[in-house]
Amino acid sequence: MKDIERIVKEKGIECPECGGSLVNPSHFMTMFRTAIGPYTGNEAFLRPETAQGMFTEFRRLYIITRESLPLGIAQIGRGYRNEISPRQGPIRLREFDMMELEVFYDPKDSSCPYLAEVENVKINLLHEKLRLEGEEKPEEITIKDALENGYIISEWLAYFMGLAQEFLVKLGIPREKQRFKEKLPRERAHYSRQTFDQEVYLSRWGWVEVSGHADRSDYDLSRHMKMSGHDLTAKRYLKKPLVIEKKIVKPKIEIIKRTFSDVGKIMQEISRRKSEEILRDLEEKGYIQINDLKLDKSMFEIITEKEKISVERFIPYVAEPSFGLDRVSYAALEYAYQKRENRTILSLPPYIAPIEAAVFPIVDKPQFTEIALRIKEDLVKEGFKVIYEAKESIGRRYARVDEIGVPVAFTVDGQTIEDNTVTARDRDTWKQVRIKINDCGRLVKSLIRSGRFDKALELIGIHL
Amino acid sequence: MKDIERIVKEKGIECPECGGSLVNPSHFMTMFRTAIGPYTGNEAFLRPETAQGMFTEFRRLYIITRESLPLGIAQIGRGYRNEISPRQGPIRLREFDMMELEVFYDPKDSSCPYLAEVENVKINLLHEKLRLEGEEKPEEITIKDALENGYIISEWLAYFMGLAQEFLVKLGIPREKQRFKEKLPRERAHYSRQTFDQEVYLSRWGWVEVSGHADRSDYDLSRHMKMSGHDLTAKRYLKKPLVIEKKIVKPKIEIIKRTFSDVGKIMQEISRRKSEEILRDLEEKGYIQINDLKLDKSMFEIITEKEKISVERFIPYVAEPSFGLDRVSYAALEYAYQKRENRTILSLPPYIAPIEAAVFPIVDKPQFTEIALRIKEDLVKEGFKVIYEAKESIGRRYARVDEIGVPVAFTVDGQTIEDNTVTARDRDTWKQVRIKINDCGRLVKSLIRSGRFDKALELIGIHL
Repeated sequence: MKDIERIVKEKGIECPECGGSLVNPSHFMTMFRTAIGPYTGNEAFLRPETAQGMFTEFRRLYIITRESLPLGIAQIGRGYRNEISPRQGPIRLREFDMMELEVFYDPKDSSCPYLAEVENVKINLLHEKLRLEGEEKPEEITIKDALENGYIISEWLAYFMGLAQEFLVKLGIPREKQRFKEKLPRERAHYSRQTFDQEVYLSRWGWVEVSGHADRSDYDLSRHMKMSGHDLTAKRYLKKPLVIEKKIVKPKIEIIKRTFSDVGKIMQEISRRKSEEILRDLEEKGYIQINDLKLDKSMFEIITEKEKISVERFIPYVAEPSFGLDRVSYAALEYAYQKRENRTILSLPPYIAPIEAAVFPIVDKPQFTEIALRIKEDLVKEGFKVIYEAKESIGRRYARVDEIGVPVAFTVDGQTIEDNTVTARDRDTWKQVRIKINDCGRLVKSLIRSGRFDKALELIGIHL
Repeated sequence: MKDIERIVKEKGIECPECGGSLVNPSHFMTMFRTAIGPYTGNEAFLRPETAQGMFTEFRRLYIITRESLPLGIAQIGRGYRNEISPRQGPIRLREFDMMELEVFYDPKDSSCPYLAEVENVKINLLHEKLRLEGEEKPEEITIKDALENGYIISEWLAYFMGLAQEFLVKLGIPREKQRFKEKLPRERAHYSRQTFDQEVYLSRWGWVEVSGHADRSDYDLSRHMKMSGHDLTAKRYLKKPLVIEKKIVKPKIEIIKRTFSDVGKIMQEISRRKSEEILRDLEEKGYIQINDLKLDKSMFEIITEKEKISVERFIPYVAEPSFGLDRVSYAALEYAYQKRENRTILSLPPYIAPIEAAVFPIVDKPQFTEIALRIKEDLVKEGFKVIYEAKESIGRRYARVDEIGVPVAFTVDGQTIEDNTVTARDRDTWKQVRIKINDCGRLVKSLIRSGRFDKALELIGIHL
């Protein structure tokens, strides 16, 4: 710090923007500080990650879930970082939402039973080796191969990386716009054995981290254990119990009796002491001292006993996928945002669209509105979020629901009165199909399940 | 403050608990204070309620929802209050979760279109009149009568009070353990025209507020409007346009020409001024001044014009139901907690039970576990949260799922292998019924819908 200050002064460095002089460099903590309760000095900080709550609660949750590993704890919540200069909209916020998952596992059995679900998933991996070579282009590799080549050190980490990519694909962000960038040792947080940033390409900000995948090892639990004095270990049942030999000291009562008078008191004191303690004294000093009496080696018998150990205790390792909810949402919005004939469409996957269907009467007249309102009510009863609009031209109403990402709109018109069919209009292709009123609910459901209009039509038995 | 200090000193008042001397009284702000960014002086506070975000966003949301009232905005989030001495567990937290709803309505049309849903709901109302009489026993009264008698001043407030009671009933808190207590004028927050606390009787803490129902009038929007200078009004379309008469001044150009030379400049200046301004000057002073020229009444013609006004602007009123999520959850847990034959049962209504079903093989042997695991997988596929346990005695497993509120347990036993039936066991009555394996999913679904085991059996066609 002093060096920087000196250099700034010596070289006469000024602000490159305005030519003004620079203030002296200083440390700045990016946690928000506050005080709790009425007395001063009771300092507190807003949490910069949700993770720690899961570490401090580990013991309780481990017991509640009946002391078995792997154990996963997930939390969604606010995090706070006092950024010096947050100038990237929703990408860098001082107050943001995180989804964090801590998976506690036994480092001697780090296998993930769900790995098969994703082992053939291909990811774009910019691993340490590539980065050290100065390579910027990631390697396309399956989760399985990334593990086998040692690029990812734990199955749990690899599993969640595969899952994280597929999660974002489901949100509409294609695989080729995603990559995993390994942090170099000097870039990693102090608690991490290995970290990958999942990055998404955003038109305005370039590659942006949306989730971090870290193997935090036993760092956090060890530290909490040390600072709190509480036991945060887990149990490991040994398949083959360990047999260890243990030396036990046994006082020779007859000999002690011959030397000292108050044998009862002496025996009581001996039983209070640990075997190891007595052994150490006998070996180091040749005797043990009880009050002002010295008992020497001849007064003890040393027996070797075998002990079976079937439970070991250890500090679990932790694999942590941690998502920035705001960034994930922003990315999903950016990839959903489209222009078509100069109009805006928000092509959100139907299963994340906040409003799932629109119902319109072709014009605002009772013969149409009555049917339309009934369709709307039925859809609402089936649990869908539905918008109903009767005013303005039908084109304008379609445009409006396209803009807010409603995947399908149903329109009641003259033909509806004749044959009980409505127009079902696809948001993304503007394709229109006539379907029976009774099929509206099934179409919305199929759309949410399949994610695509043509597939959804097929599911309800309509082939175009 | 000084008075309190003086009295404490004069009377020699000491701590009633320990006899120690008291510190001087001082103001204490119950908002947490922090600082934003690297520069000092940029003070900030953690929000004590989520409400303000909805007021400051009102204009944007009003426009997005196409400028129509009533408009409801809901938010769930953390609130922070730096309590001096929070000693009531989850009842008084420094960091807590709120669910707040702001309904913006036109004070000239405060009718709630959903009122009929709750108008016959009976609530226990300890209204202002009773409280002023020193009465502690609430009046049992329907929402409709409470409105008609003027006990509740707005339909929106009344509607949400009815809804709030039914919401808590659904969470398992009976109506007779709930009451609405009106705040007396001196107890009300500065922003409120009328406030009711919804209170629940808790065994340990007595009557505890779980939600507040306030009519905040136009207080917040008015204040934000004043401080920010932004327009936070809403539009009211008049059914009959107002016709108002307006006086317009028209310069008599011929006369002005006769008196002054630079008529162009004079006319320009006149057109820049507002009619009302010129009128006021003419009436008060008898002339208007333009630079060093004085134009008197004779130089103007005063015309009366009629103007049609079809839109008025006004500041909406706000009805606010505000729930303390932690307290509501605590109350639901307390009312669900039961003892039966010295064992604990958490009788959560099935629709809020975190785990919806348990599946057990009678003993941990393949002929049972295979079927049990298949049943479990099927239930999971249907979207239910299911627990599976194979170890320990069946009685112990039942006891364990009773304790965590799992409403139904299915057990695979010898008979299952013969006839494809399982035992369905009710958490609350410990009643056991044999049902077909294929009916498990339907039973869970019916249980969640109906909330009761006997009803659920009926729904799937089994009559006891």
